[in-house]
Amino acid sequence: MSARRHFASDNNAGMHPAVLQAIIEANGAGHFRSYGHDPYTERALELFRTHFGPEASAWLVFNGTAANVLGLQAVTQPHQAVICADGAHINVDECGAPERFTSCKLIPVPTPDGKLRPADLPRLLGGMGDEHRVQPRVVSISQSTELGTVYSVAEVAALADTAHRHGLLLHMDGARLANAAVSLGVPFRAFTTDAGVDLLSVGGTKNGLMGAEAVVLLRPGLDAEMPFIRKQGMQLASKMRFLAAQFIALLGGDLWRQNAEQANRMARLLADGVRGVPGITLTQPVEANGVFARVPAEHIPALQERAFFYVWNAETSEVRWMTAWDTTEDDVQRFVDAVVEIVT
Amino acid sequence: MSARRHFASDNNAGMHPAVLQAIIEANGAGHFRSYGHDPYTERALELFRTHFGPEASAWLVFNGTAANVLGLQAVTQPHQAVICADGAHINVDECGAPERFTSCKLIPVPTPDGKLRPADLPRLLGGMGDEHRVQPRVVSISQSTELGTVYSVAEVAALADTAHRHGLLLHMDGARLANAAVSLGVPFRAFTTDAGVDLLSVGGTKNGLMGAEAVVLLRPGLDAEMPFIRKQGMQLASKMRFLAAQFIALLGGDLWRQNAEQANRMARLLADGVRGVPGITLTQPVEANGVFARVPAEHIPALQERAFFYVWNAETSEVRWMTAWDTTEDDVQRFVDAVVEIVT
Amino acid sequence: MSARRHFASDNNAGMHPAVLQAIIEANGAGHFRSYGHDPYTERALELFRTHFGPEASAWLVFNGTAANVLGLQAVTQPHQAVICADGAHINVDECGAPERFTSCKLIPVPTPDGKLRPADLPRLLGGMGDEHRVQPRVVSISQSTELGTVYSVAEVAALADTAHRHGLLLHMDGARLANAAVSLGVPFRAFTTDAGVDLLSVGGTKNGLMGAEAVVLLRPGLDAEMPFIRKQGMQLASKMRFLAAQFIALLGGDLWRQNAEQANRMARLLADGVRGVPGITLTQPVEANGVFARVPAEHIPALQERAFFYVWNAETSEVRWMTAWDTTEDDVQRFVDAVVEIVT
Amino acid sequence: MSARRHFASDNNAGMHPAVLQAIIEANGAGHFRSYGHDPYTERALELFRTHFGPEASAWLVFNGTAANVLGLQAVTQPHQAVICADGAHINVDECGAPERFTSCKLIPVPTPDGKLRPADLPRLLGGMGDEHRVQPRVVSISQSTELGTVYSVAEVAALADTAHRHGLLLHMDGARLANAAVSLGVPFRAFTTDAGVDLLSVGGTKNGLMGAEAVVLLRPGLDAEMPFIRKQGMQLASKMRFLAAQFIALLGGDLWRQNAEQANRMARLLADGVRGVPGITLTQPVEANGVFARVPAEHIPALQERAFFYVWNAETSEVRWMTAWDTTEDDVQRFVDAVVEIVT
Repeated sequence: MSARRHFASDNNAGMHPAVLQAIIEANGAGHFRSYGHDPYTERALELFRTHFGPEASAWLVFNGTAANVLGLQAVTQPHQAVICADGAHINVDECGAPERFTSCKLIPVPTPDGKLRPADLPRLLGGMGDEHRVQPRVVSISQSTELGTVYSVAEVAALADTAHRHGLLLHMDGARLANAAVSLGVPFRAFTTDAGVDLLSVGGTKNGLMGAEAVVLLRPGLDAEMPFIRKQGMQLASKMRFLAAQFIALLGGDLWRQNAEQANRMARLLADGVRGVPGITLTQPVEANGVFARVPAEHIPALQERAFFYVWNAETSEVRWMTAWDTTEDDVQRFVDAVVEIVT
Repeated sequence: MSARRHFASDNNAGMHPAVLQAIIEANGAGHFRSYGHDPYTERALELFRTHFGPEASAWLVFNGTAANVLGLQAVTQPHQAVICADGAHINVDECGAPERFTSCKLIPVPTPDGKLRPADLPRLLGGMGDEHRVQPRVVSISQSTELGTVYSVAEVAALADTAHRHGLLLHMDGARLANAAVSLGVPFRAFTTDAGVDLLSVGGTKNGLMGAEAVVLLRPGLDAEMPFIRKQGMQLASKMRFLAAQFIALLGGDLWRQNAEQANRMARLLADGVRGVPGITLTQPVEANGVFARVPAEHIPALQERAFFYVWNAETSEVRWMTAWDTTEDDVQRFVDAVVEIVT
Repeated sequence: MSARRHFASDNNAGMHPAVLQAIIEANGAGHFRSYGHDPYTERALELFRTHFGPEASAWLVFNGTAANVLGLQAVTQPHQAVICADGAHINVDECGAPERFTSCKLIPVPTPDGKLRPADLPRLLGGMGDEHRVQPRVVSISQSTELGTVYSVAEVAALADTAHRHGLLLHMDGARLANAAVSLGVPFRAFTTDAGVDLLSVGGTKNGLMGAEAVVLLRPGLDAEMPFIRKQGMQLASKMRFLAAQFIALLGGDLWRQNAEQANRMARLLADGVRGVPGITLTQPVEANGVFARVPAEHIPALQERAFFYVWNAETSEVRWMTAWDTTEDDVQRFVDAVVEIVT
Repeated sequence: MSARRHFASDNNAGMHPAVLQAIIEANGAGHFRSYGHDPYTERALELFRTHFGPEASAWLVFNGTAANVLGLQAVTQPHQAVICADGAHINVDECGAPERFTSCKLIPVPTPDGKLRPADLPRLLGGMGDEHRVQPRVVSISQSTELGTVYSVAEVAALADTAHRHGLLLHMDGARLANAAVSLGVPFRAFTTDAGVDLLSVGGTKNGLMGAEAVVLLRPGLDAEMPFIRKQGMQLASKMRFLAAQFIALLGGDLWRQNAEQANRMARLLADGVRGVPGITLTQPVEANGVFARVPAEHIPALQERAFFYVWNAETSEVRWMTAWDTTEDDVQRFVDAVVEIVT
């Protein structure tokens, strides 16, 4: 079976050949102890410390929902709450898994661009100490956001400061963390550990892995219960070496950057190609690997025939075009041509 | 990195080359829709229907704990209970995940050989209808069991009958289902669907996959909520094709049987080799791919040096030797030689 | 100890003498079987059927939070959701108990007056059938609302119709149900059972009881699991006769109406008294037993000295004055006088 | 309505007149702030400190199941476990509420007399630190036990020592704590705080209250989350003064002792009366207010006609006779006479 590349999601791509090669090598000969007691896992965790600082405690899991949920669970009690953008993945795309497993209420904040601001927080904290109210404990942001935007280092730091001043922690959903790093042009730790983030999810699946993510706890002590939380959370892989090998391929050299750069560049190319096409309006800045645009509703089906993508908001006729590590200039050019042909 | 094969667990083995090949092919060219809307998943689900009957509804997940938990969740309410052997994986090896997610109490039954019997059930059902008591809803058995024993078809059918007569369902933890099928010499459905099992976990990881399991619901209607249970249970893979491809490799031809036959044969070979060695006592019939034996405690460390394995019960000096799809006659012979050399 | 009456909450009042008398009589002589197997409970449940129709299945519990939570749990699965006004008691005043026990997400809807409208629903239902989204299952309204407003019979019926057309149920938080009934001048069932409500909480504590509430399920079959849900929900009273006796006093004759009429009348009297006082602005229609008003912030402490009440919204200097079954004309007059004296 | 006294349960009795009088007085005149911000609650909490020591932090709740569950929740995480006697109320009579709300597994220990012993613990702690296993955190004992037996002060202290040595806490289900205190002839704190108990449930309902229990946390810091746990646990009474007033009546003077003494004395009288009756065998020492006996099965219905009681174990024809604060010598004598008449 084979299929052409399209723009539905960065998780519609396969894995990068170097990742596949790492899996092949990890399959190697012989037996390795299960559940992470193997040299691949040891090496992968070391790489997380290289990228996020010596205190970083990484926990490999299967997917992004789990990375978010288990991280949040590590730092919350059932009567607490998590403040997030109303369009956050944890709020709308995880079928209530965060509430189900942490028991915490999510407090959604409307945002124009998927980004929380320090000024959003104080008015949500009025019930602190009141036993009738859930108690905000975490501010969760997505980097890059679900709308393809990116927090600057200063924006993250300002949120961390505000959160900490009120006794809250800052969590980052980094399903597309590499896209943000490349967009900002700084190392991971500049806008995570060093900017005051307390814990995060680090995504690999959308950046060229077959399927692997990590919970990364950045403050000493936050990981005390994590072995149990991960196992009880049904996320402890027996053949952990295969998750670890993927991350070794991604983080051991430059692959994470190369993959994200390609995806981001293709998004800009696509945006540049359709910008100015009559009838097309870009609705968000293109800062990572997503392009959001309003497109005349009647033309959407014909465009989807050429390369599949999702309608983001049917009411406003807004669509989302995601690029991936394997999107090519040719893919983009053919799609831009299609847009020009069909829409105009 | 490379490591010699040992006898710690069938999940210490890598994946079979044919499984790796299937993953390589699924990586292929181009994009596939995520979350199971791809032709690989379609084919894998069809194979489950081939093996378990046209009503079988299969749901791919990442690991065995999840397969058990999500299956049980599909058929229980929080005030219900699950009856199982006291040594069942769900009772002792899943860190309370079944209770955590189903909220059900597990009712453990002591057994000499890991197998429940129909006569165990009636005395546990005295509180049916009493609001002060949890309400048994499921009988859960492991096939093959955690002690390397196998239920006969008739034994499964008798349990199903008794369960159904009392309004309960029969669940099977099939983390080692292929080992049981090979041991019994019958197709999967003979001791599952046709014997009255209502739902089961089908294991792949311990039989040569990189990591993939399935919840299989055998009665119409049981799967009504499964899409949501799997997603909310953090077990919906975005790049599902890679889980599906593994199962296609396993179930599409003879691989499941070939792998399990090898493992089972090596267990018998090992048992035959150590049987009669003075100081060694086999403690369970060797019906699948595990060998349980009492070994003089003072010799265990030296034996573990030769090939790692786990002590099952330190008090009784009982050990567990597991064989895998890749265990060779040579591996076994060298270990038997070591036993003879060290113990006698 | 003794304390003067104030306007903080209708749950700051004690119990009506007739309720106390009923408790004294239920204490009577001798033993009654526990957990509701007594003639008082039988009689109370019969009274609920009298008021809400022959299908009404009532379950006595200790408090209002429990009545809401257990009712919602009876009709939801963990991946579902409950739509409510953003100021609903279940959303802001129950410390996350609904999410904790049902696992459902609450979907809050901003409202000017505490009342949902049919037009609020369709846009929240776009994700029906999508496994990534929680699935709305219940629309929950408060009657009377937390803002002292009351849904008309037609408004309830319209919401029920819309909910049912989309496969949802309508739940009513009736912590102040009697105040609504008196306000509408109709029997309970006119705006509950007959208007399409599927289940509700019926409050007694705020209408003259010592402390007793009920979950009332209005459709056959909804109560199948309720005995277990109530017991597991820690709400099964052993000496149930004392909860039942209170409801017999309340619902057996006219007490529910008499108490609510007094409270509602006192609220109107208070509103009439302060309306027109310079600096005071009533912010909600006074349809039940609550008066909401903006009061100059600097005068609030002096007013609270005269008779305690809560600031509802510190930012807008809005206060809430609640009247109770025992509030007297004299209480109101003295407070109105204080307002005039202090504010003007 | 009125009914004769029987021997079904101590919760079949009404409330003591002094408790009713306290409720009447608390109803008094005027309004009190809700949710425990009232002078009655203040006084009640002070009385708990008098009885259990200055560090004792008491939290009034509605019933015994809640007292156990909320206490356990205050000191556990979801991956932990609670060790208890297999016949413990938390294990068999609370419909799984402890598992439902704490998510902890209960580890039941078979006992001949309802009492755990230090020697029961070590073999249950083998999996400490192993992420695959639930982690024992609490040892829970009932005092007096469900079988009418009582731990001596030394027995409690020995359990506390063993628990603490292994990093566990000792919880006491004191639904019948007064019966134990009277049996031992010591103050409450001698066999709780001073014996090393870390937290307990203090029962009132079975000792003459209308319905009120308390969670009492005996170590500083254990109560940090309790306000939220109680509210989210649906156990925060709005008209708290009425729970508090009951405890003031019970604990402010001698009523707790007087009620328990009467019940205990009546149990001894009953035991003495039937001991030696041919066909009757007492099966447990009578140390509190329960009498357990084997009675010829064919005579049970006739005896229940005279005064209702429950069959404890139908297989062994064992019955339970509970006495209450209001059981009289005449009640006992008439029942003993009935036993003699019917059984012999």
